[in-house]
Amino acid sequence: MCGVLVQLEDALAALAERHVETVMVARTWLQQATPTTFGRKAAGWLAALRRTRAGLERALREASVLQFGGASGTLASLGDRGVEVGEALARELGLTLPALPWHAERDRFAALAAACGNVAGILGKIARDVSLLAQNEIAEAAEPSAPGRGGSSTMPQKRNPVACAIALAAAVRAPALVATMFAAMPQEHERGLGGWHAEWETLPELVRVLSGSAHVMAQAIAGLEVDAARMRANLDATQGFAMAESFKTALAVSLGLWRAHDIVEAASRRAAGEGRTLREVLDGDPDVRAHVSPEALDRAGDPRNYLGVATQFVQRSIADRAP
Amino acid sequence: MCGVLVQLEDALAALAERHVETVMVARTWLQQATPTTFGRKAAGWLAALRRTRAGLERALREASVLQFGGASGTLASLGDRGVEVGEALARELGLTLPALPWHAERDRFAALAAACGNVAGILGKIARDVSLLAQNEIAEAAEPSAPGRGGSSTMPQKRNPVACAIALAAAVRAPALVATMFAAMPQEHERGLGGWHAEWETLPELVRVLSGSAHVMAQAIAGLEVDAARMRANLDATQGFAMAESFKTALAVSLGLWRAHDIVEAASRRAAGEGRTLREVLDGDPDVRAHVSPEALDRAGDPRNYLGVATQFVQRSIADRAP
Amino acid sequence: MCGVLVQLEDALAALAERHVETVMVARTWLQQATPTTFGRKAAGWLAALRRTRAGLERALREASVLQFGGASGTLASLGDRGVEVGEALARELGLTLPALPWHAERDRFAALAAACGNVAGILGKIARDVSLLAQNEIAEAAEPSAPGRGGSSTMPQKRNPVACAIALAAAVRAPALVATMFAAMPQEHERGLGGWHAEWETLPELVRVLSGSAHVMAQAIAGLEVDAARMRANLDATQGFAMAESFKTALAVSLGLWRAHDIVEAASRRAAGEGRTLREVLDGDPDVRAHVSPEALDRAGDPRNYLGVATQFVQRSIADRAP
Amino acid sequence: MCGVLVQLEDALAALAERHVETVMVARTWLQQATPTTFGRKAAGWLAALRRTRAGLERALREASVLQFGGASGTLASLGDRGVEVGEALARELGLTLPALPWHAERDRFAALAAACGNVAGILGKIARDVSLLAQNEIAEAAEPSAPGRGGSSTMPQKRNPVACAIALAAAVRAPALVATMFAAMPQEHERGLGGWHAEWETLPELVRVLSGSAHVMAQAIAGLEVDAARMRANLDATQGFAMAESFKTALAVSLGLWRAHDIVEAASRRAAGEGRTLREVLDGDPDVRAHVSPEALDRAGDPRNYLGVATQFVQRSIADRAP
Repeated sequence: MCGVLVQLEDALAALAERHVETVMVARTWLQQATPTTFGRKAAGWLAALRRTRAGLERALREASVLQFGGASGTLASLGDRGVEVGEALARELGLTLPALPWHAERDRFAALAAACGNVAGILGKIARDVSLLAQNEIAEAAEPSAPGRGGSSTMPQKRNPVACAIALAAAVRAPALVATMFAAMPQEHERGLGGWHAEWETLPELVRVLSGSAHVMAQAIAGLEVDAARMRANLDATQGFAMAESFKTALAVSLGLWRAHDIVEAASRRAAGEGRTLREVLDGDPDVRAHVSPEALDRAGDPRNYLGVATQFVQRSIADRAP
Repeated sequence: MCGVLVQLEDALAALAERHVETVMVARTWLQQATPTTFGRKAAGWLAALRRTRAGLERALREASVLQFGGASGTLASLGDRGVEVGEALARELGLTLPALPWHAERDRFAALAAACGNVAGILGKIARDVSLLAQNEIAEAAEPSAPGRGGSSTMPQKRNPVACAIALAAAVRAPALVATMFAAMPQEHERGLGGWHAEWETLPELVRVLSGSAHVMAQAIAGLEVDAARMRANLDATQGFAMAESFKTALAVSLGLWRAHDIVEAASRRAAGEGRTLREVLDGDPDVRAHVSPEALDRAGDPRNYLGVATQFVQRSIADRAP
Repeated sequence: MCGVLVQLEDALAALAERHVETVMVARTWLQQATPTTFGRKAAGWLAALRRTRAGLERALREASVLQFGGASGTLASLGDRGVEVGEALARELGLTLPALPWHAERDRFAALAAACGNVAGILGKIARDVSLLAQNEIAEAAEPSAPGRGGSSTMPQKRNPVACAIALAAAVRAPALVATMFAAMPQEHERGLGGWHAEWETLPELVRVLSGSAHVMAQAIAGLEVDAARMRANLDATQGFAMAESFKTALAVSLGLWRAHDIVEAASRRAAGEGRTLREVLDGDPDVRAHVSPEALDRAGDPRNYLGVATQFVQRSIADRAP
Repeated sequence: MCGVLVQLEDALAALAERHVETVMVARTWLQQATPTTFGRKAAGWLAALRRTRAGLERALREASVLQFGGASGTLASLGDRGVEVGEALARELGLTLPALPWHAERDRFAALAAACGNVAGILGKIARDVSLLAQNEIAEAAEPSAPGRGGSSTMPQKRNPVACAIALAAAVRAPALVATMFAAMPQEHERGLGGWHAEWETLPELVRVLSGSAHVMAQAIAGLEVDAARMRANLDATQGFAMAESFKTALAVSLGLWRAHDIVEAASRRAAGEGRTLREVLDGDPDVRAHVSPEALDRAGDPRNYLGVATQFVQRSIADRAP
């Protein structure tokens, strides 16, 4: 499964690189906030996926230890040769030999399950974002289309984000499967009753659910359709409110931060009430007119000038190969 | 909290060392199995606690990264100096500066929660074992007693395992608190709605619950009362069935493994049915009499001779300081 | 808490009634589907809230039974008068006297927790919908605004759906709190160790979380701002695709269902590819021209004519007072 | 499945009736408390199983409603005949027709899942108790034995409580499966994305897990081996401490409650310290000798005289057929 995750990371890195200058609006609390780039967004997904994939590999490595203890963890039937035989067996199986058997201490599997859940959670986060971007009224991104994919028998125009559905379902199911592995931990004495048995179907199910999520999201991201023009249009469609912080920062140079804040806040309210753009209202403000040049307002009103270090963040994320 | 966990580890190591030769019966599926030592049991607890404590420290370290992204993760209000300011701030706070802001990618906190849950699970496992050993009919161990500790207003003789109750309660609660952190992961865009807010009370609550468990178990283990004589008596009380594997191993030398298995199985059934000891029945078996000396049976019937490498496991566990 | 839920139901019923003719687009898989009304949407919320509130009241009633068993469930210290005293005590406390004490059988509390979780889930569903409708690009509904409510220190234009955040957070947290109550159920003998104690903080926390959710959603729904014009505009903005099923149904009268399906599917694809409306493409189709009058197409293209029994569903929901 | 649960209830009722006078020790906090009867214990299991089974049947009935809403819940393609067709279809399928379609309001399935989880929890409680009673050192009950059932390949004497293992595993798994159904509830608009899909495998899995638990426990309880002599022996083995409350109650008649409490508490401590029985120590107490006759002490020391209304509780539980 880590292979398909690496493919997904490569697709995310390519997406981040390709859209390093694709301006869009960032959204917080499900509301438009300030400008960002789609590259920056993808770079955030990339970093998180790399971290959680690395965590999964580590947990897998740490769980790949031999459990070899005989009937109850002393290897009594091997006399005094238990450790020696254990070493040979571990070598044979390519597993680490731990200090001692651990049949009823299940922390390594709980950690492995948590690492799976963490990847599923990040895939769910990517799917959440993609499915929100794919809403008809936003339409900034769409899963790749193919005949029969995401259609509806009664609504021929439909193009459902089916990969996101699977990844989101996995992100709903994984937390509880992880919880089961933790709930099973207080196992009795040298081999538990019930807790141990609860793991048998749970861990494979979790791996299966995660695997499905990883595969569909790798496909969806590799073929993701991005509409840069629509991204820009959505940013522009809200009366310039997404540029409010930018205007405030520009005004603050000559008017001070608190004054700038008050002016922009009042102007935002007025613009909202009158259905005008924030820029129009600011243009009519005597204080602004007195202290800020139209060129400075032009500059402040252009989202391309208010992206901070988004590009550096993209580059840093792509370069950060070894989490 | 890691301090109190280290204290608990020290107490477990001391317990393991002190009882390296204290023979007791191992139990699997809540049934007596074969002999082990209490030192071996404590050594298993020790190794698991060390692993999960190390995992907690690592997760804490990995979660100690600066989140610094401004309104929506570009640091636009700082112009092109975002990374530079981020570096200075991280230095100031003693945090790592990650490749980029991560407000809506919550994997590090999910991993931290899981690491807490893993310690709580192992403390729950220790508490499960201690509370089972403390049952009146078993009475092999007891929490330290003190005036007012574990008493009952209506039953003056009661000595309730109160530390175990707290640790077991924590192990029941922790999995769900961990699951909440994972369930909160698919957060929308640059700052989520609801998922983020679900974390606010959950992670502190989990830390609080774990901390309580760690403190009471550190006390309980430091003062644990162990009854070595009762351990031996419980092993001896079950007609020698715990030595069945040992007898089988001894018989196998001259009779072969399958033959030995059949003989011991039949003898076990007969001993159970007639209320006699396994040794008595084996003594009356002509095959055994013909091929196995009474001295060999004596040897095989003594649990001290059927402990395998339990002592080495104890030593390996105590020595394995750096998981 | 049930009082505030009833208030919320009243607000939902009023909303459903007021918007019984407010046309909007229904959305499935986060994609526009076919027309509906906002009244129909609110009526669905209403019915579910009534069901779960009724379930909560029932569970509360069923959990309001006396636990009175003495030290271990026999009332031995009362001699043979246990039942008699129990009856008097239950009368005094206004509780039901069950057949027998039930200290370690926790099903009633698990059921009560589940009933709380069910209300929290439905409130989360309403919050999910409202927050999606409140996205800037959709803007069909908004939480009531008030000075200081939902604002942002750095983005003065922001109007965050804060009630939805709280209700969604509650819906993320409740499932795990419910799970804890179920996980605590296998309690030992006459009074459990750990499981019982895990309930102490969990059930109150769940009630607290639910209560917060109920209060903020009652406020948010009572003052919900609905933009009917925007609802209609969003429906119209997608080239008439939301009317595809309606066109298909109209065409089927003279062309048969399968033929109609094929024509509409092809026309949808073409309209999407050429950026035209579905109606325009259908107008140009010779088969359609030959068999379907422009008036019939006009009728089929008007969402007000394709609402099925939405109005009856609203009325049935409002009338269905006693679930 | 409800059929097998009713069988299990019948077996529990038979057990409760058969052992209405079988004295055993009740245990709280995993410590011996006061006397009870095995009939009383089984009667508690019975009442809880009946309640949760009734809850499951009710939830199943309440979830057996028709979901019939067409593409998005208006039945638009049926014109104005939606309700009429719905009524006919519901009749055909033997389902209730609800006030309106409910595709994205999932409370009925969440309630059904919770009802399953509640039965699984009670079965887990019974399994916990049986497995604890079956420990070799307690040996008061055992699962029915059969060739090959519960054996161990290496330990021929083993008789593992395999039904309990399955029921306890189910009780570990069910809470998380229930939580998944609740976590899936905030489904988007008229048909959700991900939440809905998360239910598809979860509810069937929960039913499967519960069903397995019900079947094995029905078998285990039907053939449960109860050792009444051992029950009595375990009660007597702890120096009479289980009779402390009874002695206190007897002493209180002439010495007052607080005085009686102090005397019994001191005597308990002394008995514990000196390894004597509580009765011996009380016999040597001058206050006791002065005020309480040996006959009264004899009476108070006999557990059969300190069972309160255990028998009535058994009868009430058996009679309480319709929860």
